Amino acid sequence: MDQLHLPRINGARLWQSLMDLAAIGATPRGGVCRIALTEADRQGRDLVVRWCREAGLDVRVDEIGNVFARRAGSDPHARAVATGSHIDTQPSGGKFDGNFGVLAGLEVMRTLDDLGIVTRAPLEVAFWTNEEGTRFTPVMMGSGVFAGEFDAAFARAQADVDGVSVGDALAAIGYRGAQPAGEVPDGMFAAYFEAHIEQGPVLEAAGLPIGVVSGALGQQWYDVTVTGMDAHAGPTPLALRHDAMLAAARMVDAVNRIAHDEAPHGRGTVGYLQVTPNSRNVIPGRVDFSVDFRNLSQDGLDRMHAAMHAAFEGIAVAAGVEVDIRQVVKFEPCVFAPECVDSVRRAASALGLPHMDVVSGAGHDAVYVARRAPTGMIFVPCKDGISHNELEDALPEHVEAGANVLLQAMLAHAR
Amino acid sequence: MDQLHLPRINGARLWQSLMDLAAIGATPRGGVCRIALTEADRQGRDLVVRWCREAGLDVRVDEIGNVFARRAGSDPHARAVATGSHIDTQPSGGKFDGNFGVLAGLEVMRTLDDLGIVTRAPLEVAFWTNEEGTRFTPVMMGSGVFAGEFDAAFARAQADVDGVSVGDALAAIGYRGAQPAGEVPDGMFAAYFEAHIEQGPVLEAAGLPIGVVSGALGQQWYDVTVTGMDAHAGPTPLALRHDAMLAAARMVDAVNRIAHDEAPHGRGTVGYLQVTPNSRNVIPGRVDFSVDFRNLSQDGLDRMHAAMHAAFEGIAVAAGVEVDIRQVVKFEPCVFAPECVDSVRRAASALGLPHMDVVSGAGHDAVYVARRAPTGMIFVPCKDGISHNELEDALPEHVEAGANVLLQAMLAHAR
Repeated sequence: MDQLHLPRINGARLWQSLMDLAAIGATPRGGVCRIALTEADRQGRDLVVRWCREAGLDVRVDEIGNVFARRAGSDPHARAVATGSHIDTQPSGGKFDGNFGVLAGLEVMRTLDDLGIVTRAPLEVAFWTNEEGTRFTPVMMGSGVFAGEFDAAFARAQADVDGVSVGDALAAIGYRGAQPAGEVPDGMFAAYFEAHIEQGPVLEAAGLPIGVVSGALGQQWYDVTVTGMDAHAGPTPLALRHDAMLAAARMVDAVNRIAHDEAPHGRGTVGYLQVTPNSRNVIPGRVDFSVDFRNLSQDGLDRMHAAMHAAFEGIAVAAGVEVDIRQVVKFEPCVFAPECVDSVRRAASALGLPHMDVVSGAGHDAVYVARRAPTGMIFVPCKDGISHNELEDALPEHVEAGANVLLQAMLAHAR
Repeated sequence: MDQLHLPRINGARLWQSLMDLAAIGATPRGGVCRIALTEADRQGRDLVVRWCREAGLDVRVDEIGNVFARRAGSDPHARAVATGSHIDTQPSGGKFDGNFGVLAGLEVMRTLDDLGIVTRAPLEVAFWTNEEGTRFTPVMMGSGVFAGEFDAAFARAQADVDGVSVGDALAAIGYRGAQPAGEVPDGMFAAYFEAHIEQGPVLEAAGLPIGVVSGALGQQWYDVTVTGMDAHAGPTPLALRHDAMLAAARMVDAVNRIAHDEAPHGRGTVGYLQVTPNSRNVIPGRVDFSVDFRNLSQDGLDRMHAAMHAAFEGIAVAAGVEVDIRQVVKFEPCVFAPECVDSVRRAASALGLPHMDVVSGAGHDAVYVARRAPTGMIFVPCKDGISHNELEDALPEHVEAGANVLLQAMLAHAR
């Protein structure tokens, strides 16, 4: 089939669905506040479920509130080819993060109906509970339970700041299903694709509409405390100081250098830093800060871990301070299934859409689902790389292009 | 006169006076809270004034509340040889900061009475209003008015957080005197000496009881704002970042390097630093911090100023951020009168007290008085270099040694 005769989704319909869903929890500055398992989330879920039923899909809800909507295939023994994302948002979230992946999946189903195409394998569009982790932790809860990262009972017992549990919140909004988490009618998915805004600046900087996501960076987060001694800035000569701020500053620079040594995928960030006593003429006696390391291989993360310990200890000795490093978060790197990555790349090529291979720097539901099924992701650019912000924005032509790639990739596995 | 026959102060009496004065405003942890122009300050002033009168001194109060207590000399035309310091404290202050200098001066008068010595020149012991600047700014207010740095009307109009003015607070505690500030009966002082704890670690580290203070470092303080762009720590590659934290960290290191380049007197400190938004997985878009530069010469401070601008601008360009530098404080360096510094050095030598030349890193009343009269200072060690803290401590033998040096230095100018 040549490029002109490939089936295409309806970009205007997809855009209108994105705008309609964004009206639920809309904020004055153009964003969306639809936090997981709130009344707004219920309204959003109800709307998407209604659309799925109107498209003739069979909707099921599992015990952690993940929703699966199935379009039957011609082969009763075939495993489903799936897609999905999430519809919960950050408190100051945008219209596209998560929502784009879910509604692109729905648009694929609607398009196949329009064209009268019946696939061999069934198709599923899922939305996963509490990806954002704003009200309840851990983040990516629904896909994490699906993947066996934690069990459903643990997840349902998690409580918000008011003591309300996930289980009770699911029941309150009518989304505590009976289906055991992780149980799909025909066994596990044959493949899973997730379309998502990039949430970063790479595609926009490259001027490309499609990112072929080869995997997701692993993450290791640390809390660091540097302890020196408070002293007067005036009467204390440099040689007699135990300056926690100076040592911490050199450590921040070392974090950046260690990340550069792991180019192109190494990333190192100090996002949080607190000085004590934080008075302009007192040499700081204590600095607490965070380190966020990311890399595409566990070997790379291990190298960064070792390099950080060596660098920080050397800096501390030279500055006459103590340093304490505690690891607080660990997500392993994820390499997506080559056949799914290839399907995304071939879909973009077949559609004549310029694209590049990229990695995801952030976590996504797809990273958990990848533990249970061959998985790929499709990125589209977002304006200025901004996400988790009411200013989050994307172009209609990029949204349409991403959904068309999703359609082709799913068809490649479901035909 | 050989060392054995030099007059000596009464160390036990001086120590007892220090402890008696420290009982007014005593804190549970062994410190003192006697903030300027409070009821506690009134009680402290009244006690010291009573002691002065009991020692036969003539007490006067000027229009900003500075107190002068005079012991007459034999030459009615001679200008006074003066000493002094302050008795107000920080909210969590210690027993020695300021108090030592005032009571060492009083002990000099008491000793001369004991020994029946009448000097040619009159002697004065002063305590200056509001050295600490805790309740009212500017700091070193009384000596600043005396020296003409600001006028008495300006100082009296300064208000605390409750809107109470210095003038009203002086009247309330009975220390708003009639004598114009800066007016001394016989004209200006012939010389002024101030004994003080070091408030730093140099003498303790050197194991010496006496510091001969040759001058005080000038100070230039700055507020700095680094502006980058907030972005997700995961999806944003290093090359596309505008990381305000990384740039600020390199600037902190540059402040230290610039100070090292001005050894031995250059000092550079970042005591305050605030990160925005200060979230562990967000690349910081803004960092605000302070810079405190000190040096013994204005040329040196000028070099530090220029080196900072060059360094910060280079770092900002390399990191893709903006930097804004505002100077907020300037105290000029002070070089004490060579004849007074020599008198202190000779006094220590004559007494057989090991000593070294030092500079003051902090401001003192003596720095202002030095604008009106030949001035010198005597430092004694304080435990661990700690001051402005309830843990502030000093050894009786060091306090006694410092007062003996003060006695000899004053006699050298007053005989």
